[in-house]
Amino acid sequence: MIFYDSPNPAPNPRRVRIFAAEKAIVLDTREVSIVRREQKSPEYIAINPRGQTPSLQLDDGTVITESVAICRYLEARQPDPPLFGTSPLEIAQIEMWSRRVEMILMASVGAVWVNTHAFTAALPGRNAEWGEANRPRVEAAFRLFDESLAGRGFLATDGFTMADILLLTTVDFAAFVGCGAPADCAALTAWHQRVSARPSAAA
Amino acid sequence: MIFYDSPNPAPNPRRVRIFAAEKAIVLDTREVSIVRREQKSPEYIAINPRGQTPSLQLDDGTVITESVAICRYLEARQPDPPLFGTSPLEIAQIEMWSRRVEMILMASVGAVWVNTHAFTAALPGRNAEWGEANRPRVEAAFRLFDESLAGRGFLATDGFTMADILLLTTVDFAAFVGCGAPADCAALTAWHQRVSARPSAAA
Repeated sequence: MIFYDSPNPAPNPRRVRIFAAEKAIVLDTREVSIVRREQKSPEYIAINPRGQTPSLQLDDGTVITESVAICRYLEARQPDPPLFGTSPLEIAQIEMWSRRVEMILMASVGAVWVNTHAFTAALPGRNAEWGEANRPRVEAAFRLFDESLAGRGFLATDGFTMADILLLTTVDFAAFVGCGAPADCAALTAWHQRVSARPSAAA
Repeated sequence: MIFYDSPNPAPNPRRVRIFAAEKAIVLDTREVSIVRREQKSPEYIAINPRGQTPSLQLDDGTVITESVAICRYLEARQPDPPLFGTSPLEIAQIEMWSRRVEMILMASVGAVWVNTHAFTAALPGRNAEWGEANRPRVEAAFRLFDESLAGRGFLATDGFTMADILLLTTVDFAAFVGCGAPADCAALTAWHQRVSARPSAAA
């Protein structure tokens, strides 16, 4: 099993690294440099035709792409500690909060990144007005998560789950992009310090 | 358990209806009219503060929102027939294809819908240029799924899964929005006819 990874600030490969670290799974890793555009090289396109990282190549050659799909594969292979829940309600709550992170926060952060950031200036079809219009949406999303975390230890359940991994990697990527959380989001900040102190966050 | 539903063409509630129909689960349903803006009424906001459908209210009052989260709750409560997979590889492949439907196709269809359609003209912050720029992205996404379905019965595995439900509801919503699949996408069209012939598709 080979894990095709890219270093920070790429947020999606980091999701898998944190997930694996929480389960003490050691991945046989190959690094794919986004800065050097190695994800678009013929060698990598042969593995993942979409030219994105991460990818997980199984021993029979089957390739799984999409960070959350790779995490679900690892969870099914090694259920403990469970990060996608075990009871019907936990499973639903983790999915609900994971989707909120991706659709409400990450979609807006991505729009700012792709349409306004200096590092993506060469991408075709940029729309600066659309990118700028997403900055207040990012802020509104951060305030939603701040309110949701008030008085709670973790985002979806009583414990650390995939939803926390998605929020942590998104918060850190948003800061890199220059649209980080407002300073007065106290519950979000406290949660961020808490989950960032876990050894897995160094992944 | 009460299911808060909205009629077609709303694509997200339909996902849950098809999912439940495949499992022969009969839901105790309350209809929320999007046309009459009932999803923004004080009564419904008290159930789901985000003012969106669908929602599932459990007997203890707990509310699960987000269509896929509701489906995962139903799957965990009634595993047969499995629609999210049972083996690690199936689970990963269904998640991978589900995410591709949502992030590559549905995100672009949604951008066309929200930024260009007559029915959404009153929404604030519309960007017509961004909406129009998404039309070729919708077409490119349809061609990706067409290629992926060539020689295959279903999208993610050998059987009908959640990934097929997501693609079916997205294809039909795209047609409603006026950015349906290109006529020459033969494999996609054949798949669409096949899954539309299942009794659950009438949901």
